[in-house]
Amino acid sequence: MGEPQGVIGRLLEELAKLPGIGPKSAERIAHFLLAGDRSQATKLADALRAVADRVRPCRECFTLTDREVCEICSDPRRDAALLCVVETPRDVASFERAGSFRGLYHVLGGRLAPLDGVGPDRLTFAPLVDRVKRGGVREVILATSPTLEGDGTALYAADVLSGSGAAVTRLARGLPSGASLELANAQMLTDALQGRRAF
Amino acid sequence: MGEPQGVIGRLLEELAKLPGIGPKSAERIAHFLLAGDRSQATKLADALRAVADRVRPCRECFTLTDREVCEICSDPRRDAALLCVVETPRDVASFERAGSFRGLYHVLGGRLAPLDGVGPDRLTFAPLVDRVKRGGVREVILATSPTLEGDGTALYAADVLSGSGAAVTRLARGLPSGASLELANAQMLTDALQGRRAF
Repeated sequence: MGEPQGVIGRLLEELAKLPGIGPKSAERIAHFLLAGDRSQATKLADALRAVADRVRPCRECFTLTDREVCEICSDPRRDAALLCVVETPRDVASFERAGSFRGLYHVLGGRLAPLDGVGPDRLTFAPLVDRVKRGGVREVILATSPTLEGDGTALYAADVLSGSGAAVTRLARGLPSGASLELANAQMLTDALQGRRAF
Repeated sequence: MGEPQGVIGRLLEELAKLPGIGPKSAERIAHFLLAGDRSQATKLADALRAVADRVRPCRECFTLTDREVCEICSDPRRDAALLCVVETPRDVASFERAGSFRGLYHVLGGRLAPLDGVGPDRLTFAPLVDRVKRGGVREVILATSPTLEGDGTALYAADVLSGSGAAVTRLARGLPSGASLELANAQMLTDALQGRRAF
């Protein structure tokens, strides 16, 4: 390498844009990909392109998937009467890793942040209400982040779901307030699910 | 996300193969790339593909480049009479970052490791000797790692370069600047004592 110009320089730039990757990590990764037969770089490029081209929101729950309806929504063993409302697809992944939830999800696509211009119309509240009103949903668990904006988002969800016939609960405050849900470990998530209470 | 199958699962697998990237980092990066408009994933894919397709060893010094002759070898301001012999292209990048060397490089492509089957024919000793014998090289600095295998590699290089007409030197051994003396091991202290200079 030596010169940060040209195609290697461009790869370093792109790698350094990734979260948690600084210039030094980018260089280590680039040299790893440059060593040997390059098939690793090609496979990663193909995987990225496939994701960029084919991943989109699930028609039902809005988590990201390369199918029309995601694996979870199409799994007949999941309890379709139990809906866990989360902010992002990453939260779905966290719950799935914890392994303690066997219902379905609904991904809002973020949290309400009026000061940043994120109003209810930017999130998937309308499809959520439609989904619950279609019937068959016994309980909606609001699993937004334990933060001011997350709480506000849960409050709004509880409001639009009132009168829908489903019980609305929220996660127990076993989670440390102020931290992002992404940082919660499996045990925290499991505790929070088990301790959920009426909203 | 939610399901680690499909194209997202493949991306997670490929990311987790990178050095310093565990499953959690892979997930954070994947979700970062999935958020928004996907142009980041596409640009990274393009950069990887360009590197995989176009990067190869410099014809002169064997560092990696997307040119026939690398930026450093083709820079007329560099001192072509001074050759720094390193193990890998990454070492070239380290020296360039340090900014204190204005000669040219020669990348061996690794270090001798007879037990792992890495003999002299697997490294670029022959082109190194050719290059020095072509003339114009005043000094060859052996900058291999200060390890058993690095030292063995330097010893071999010094041997094949003897009689080439160029002076052969190696990097100084001593205390690592910036670190506390408490952290120095016996070998560092011995090297520092043996290499001591007038104040």
